[in-house]
Amino acid sequence: MESFFIHIIQQLTQVSEQDKAIYRERFQVKHYRKGELFLREGQVCKYIGITESGLMRHYINQNGQERTYYFAQEHRFLCNYESFISQTPSSTNVQALEDTTVHVVSNEDLEYFYTHTESGNRIGRLVLGKVLIKLEKDLASFYTDTPEQRYQKFIDEYPDLEQRISQYHIASFVGVKPPSLSRIRKRMLKNP
Amino acid sequence: MESFFIHIIQQLTQVSEQDKAIYRERFQVKHYRKGELFLREGQVCKYIGITESGLMRHYINQNGQERTYYFAQEHRFLCNYESFISQTPSSTNVQALEDTTVHVVSNEDLEYFYTHTESGNRIGRLVLGKVLIKLEKDLASFYTDTPEQRYQKFIDEYPDLEQRISQYHIASFVGVKPPSLSRIRKRMLKNP
Repeated sequence: MESFFIHIIQQLTQVSEQDKAIYRERFQVKHYRKGELFLREGQVCKYIGITESGLMRHYINQNGQERTYYFAQEHRFLCNYESFISQTPSSTNVQALEDTTVHVVSNEDLEYFYTHTESGNRIGRLVLGKVLIKLEKDLASFYTDTPEQRYQKFIDEYPDLEQRISQYHIASFVGVKPPSLSRIRKRMLKNP
Repeated sequence: MESFFIHIIQQLTQVSEQDKAIYRERFQVKHYRKGELFLREGQVCKYIGITESGLMRHYINQNGQERTYYFAQEHRFLCNYESFISQTPSSTNVQALEDTTVHVVSNEDLEYFYTHTESGNRIGRLVLGKVLIKLEKDLASFYTDTPEQRYQKFIDEYPDLEQRISQYHIASFVGVKPPSLSRIRKRMLKNP
């Protein structure tokens, strides 16, 4: 069976056997227990990760309050790009909400891919393009959406996640306190 | 003198003479008068642009209210990436706030660069990485910053723009009404 990350890469573009061998050599598999951190604020983001199974959340600490801005279920990317690309301390955290298996690659290995493979830069461009579109949408949502609309987007975007994530984290993602989320849900149930 | 966009590209990475010739052939220069739109909501984003001179703003229409989320002065990128990459109608607008000169490349020509140059994918990856870091920061700011902090960030990030942009557009970027921005400015002048 082909490795998980080769499968992910091949969904983006064709890759030669030679390049695949280089990727296989340098990707590593890591396991995180529920609650463990993939990335801690103040530390350098050493790896870009792709989740094979499990679930993580990206969050920001704001005066002790945790603000969750991205849920990464299966086949999603884990990273703080600024920290990873410039190898500076991260301003954000990434934490496992379930036991999670992640395929990771270091900055050094990624640079190796860019200089030693034919497909590396193409894959980098395609992945960044996808992440960028996601961020562009998330940013637009903050400018235009009400909490109700943000909750509806959460349901649309993560249809299978509502049962896997606590109300506390969903409320944090929507940008309201848990009691407000509860009121929003009740209103939406009454007027679907 | 080397073309403007070749100069920009060379700040990112080394480019062969052969690749430069291909880029020169396919970049176009366009001029926009103050008030003109580079990109209109509902239309497909045909070009990625780099501003040589002038100033544009990216904004979203929210029930008739314009929400400005990005100012592009000299040497910045103009685009709605989702619309550009997938060639679907844009949900955002890009408008000239001053007479603006833009170097543009179409999606078709960009795909040509990716398949016919050695440096195309590398440049794409580097540019997208920069845009992504900017978006990541902007998104974090919405989760954690007060209007005061967002105004301070505007001043820090665009130190030369405050005199070039109307209070109406700055307030829209900060996410408050113009009278609130006026109060924020007064408070900051009193307690710098």
